[in-house]
Amino acid sequence: MRTRTRCKLCGKKAVVTLPYANTRLCKEHFKEYFTRRIERTIRRYRMVSPGERILVTVSGGKDSVALLDVLSILSEKLGFKIHGLTLDLGIKGYSSEYVRVAEEVYGRLGVEYTILSLKETYGFTIDEVAGIKRRVCAYCGLVKRYVFNRYAWENGFDAIATGHNMDDLLGNALFAIMRGDLEALMKIKPVIPGREALVKRIRPLAFTREKDIKLYICLKKLPVVRTTCPYAVGATSGVFKSKINELEDRFPSIKYSFARTLYDKMQIQMEESDYQLRKCKICGMPSKSQICGFCRLRAELGKISL
Amino acid sequence: MRTRTRCKLCGKKAVVTLPYANTRLCKEHFKEYFTRRIERTIRRYRMVSPGERILVTVSGGKDSVALLDVLSILSEKLGFKIHGLTLDLGIKGYSSEYVRVAEEVYGRLGVEYTILSLKETYGFTIDEVAGIKRRVCAYCGLVKRYVFNRYAWENGFDAIATGHNMDDLLGNALFAIMRGDLEALMKIKPVIPGREALVKRIRPLAFTREKDIKLYICLKKLPVVRTTCPYAVGATSGVFKSKINELEDRFPSIKYSFARTLYDKMQIQMEESDYQLRKCKICGMPSKSQICGFCRLRAELGKISL
Repeated sequence: MRTRTRCKLCGKKAVVTLPYANTRLCKEHFKEYFTRRIERTIRRYRMVSPGERILVTVSGGKDSVALLDVLSILSEKLGFKIHGLTLDLGIKGYSSEYVRVAEEVYGRLGVEYTILSLKETYGFTIDEVAGIKRRVCAYCGLVKRYVFNRYAWENGFDAIATGHNMDDLLGNALFAIMRGDLEALMKIKPVIPGREALVKRIRPLAFTREKDIKLYICLKKLPVVRTTCPYAVGATSGVFKSKINELEDRFPSIKYSFARTLYDKMQIQMEESDYQLRKCKICGMPSKSQICGFCRLRAELGKISL
Repeated sequence: MRTRTRCKLCGKKAVVTLPYANTRLCKEHFKEYFTRRIERTIRRYRMVSPGERILVTVSGGKDSVALLDVLSILSEKLGFKIHGLTLDLGIKGYSSEYVRVAEEVYGRLGVEYTILSLKETYGFTIDEVAGIKRRVCAYCGLVKRYVFNRYAWENGFDAIATGHNMDDLLGNALFAIMRGDLEALMKIKPVIPGREALVKRIRPLAFTREKDIKLYICLKKLPVVRTTCPYAVGATSGVFKSKINELEDRFPSIKYSFARTLYDKMQIQMEESDYQLRKCKICGMPSKSQICGFCRLRAELGKISL
């Protein structure tokens, strides 16, 4: 049975079996395969055009570190420029850790970057949010989306690349479908086009599995943050993610076809009113209501008055 | 802890806990609840109008037997008429069993009925289909849909009621979503409106769980066929059904919200061409192609020539 452990492309020792692709690959061919899959995703959805400037948000986790690594490889071939952004959320015992990891990765890959401090720029930390809010993760998500978008907009970036991987996107999608949240479902796409002051968001890992990301990180010996966020609790969507993985064990092509359904086939219709964007009265950034969620949060924290 | 085993409505001994409804009920109140849920489904989707004649297809399985029982109770209150139809598919060692059960149920409930023999009416049996086809279940489904519809159409029925329960519908929906079959997904609705010679199809059990159906059958001591179809193999959609049940154990309202998403919120857009119906050149019934699948099958069996 020795042949079973050989790379299908070169016959060297295989490090991984990919049932969904019906193949086994050695170290080198896996890395190539991993990069090529992301390149294909970028091309298929025309995520970037030559000459564009892409802001890559790096949290120091495996997804964003792998994304930065691959984009730094592809940027020359596809003719775009990347710049890293890491947001220091001010979470004690955690933020300093991932900022350190991110800086290490930026340095190793030679990628230009910015470390943005939430405290210095907007006067508060996520620890302060945790003091007044129960659903910290939801607010932290809001804060990150706002800060990333505003930074990209003010600095003239063409797109924001985030490390959302296939498993997370599908898990979130299933959760959204089952709880009937079509507005959330609508946003689970490889590309969310920009409009007005909302910068285009791209997800080059939309067809990349979590398992493969872990292996890539390991094979390339990339540093990732080992501490977990103190506010992280077992996310509900994780349950849905693992159900999908159980289904993929049985039907190896199911995740891919589910992704194609979500990304390409399903057109969710929304009420026109759900699309409308105004300008926040306080900060001028896009908002569904008169005052955006970020400014309302800052007001609740006593940092600004409405 | 004695109170925990009491009916929430009357305090008598509870026979069931319904986590999704956050309640416990005794025998009598469960039966009432079960019937009322189906009545609500019929009303919500305006499945029937007073004076209409409904053809109820009865396979002798738990779903169709429970459906017939409840519709016979509701028919007076809601002012419609029911007629049972059982198709003898000619499956050796199985068809005679369920025909016997169906006749027993019809007799006990005093419902008018027809037993239609596939062999006598169309000259073939499912056993013969099994001789030339691998995917018997798919062809059996085609045959049933055709024969039910033609019978309903030719006999002037306003709707065909089938026993598809919530678990089956949701399992099929998840399977359809994940494999990207939006045409199948589109049909997973409580009501499929009629058009031309396609008679309206209604699914009054669209919000009724399999578990509850089993309990209802048991409490009402209704006969159901105990033999399994010899062609039944573990259906793929069963895997999806059980994943959904595992999710419901964790999130008791998830099945209901998933059903509402599917039935009410999701509007699947299809190509215009997928909608078009012609008339089959052979039998004149609605068909997507020149000759309908049923006639093609009969031709393959040598019963007619094209």
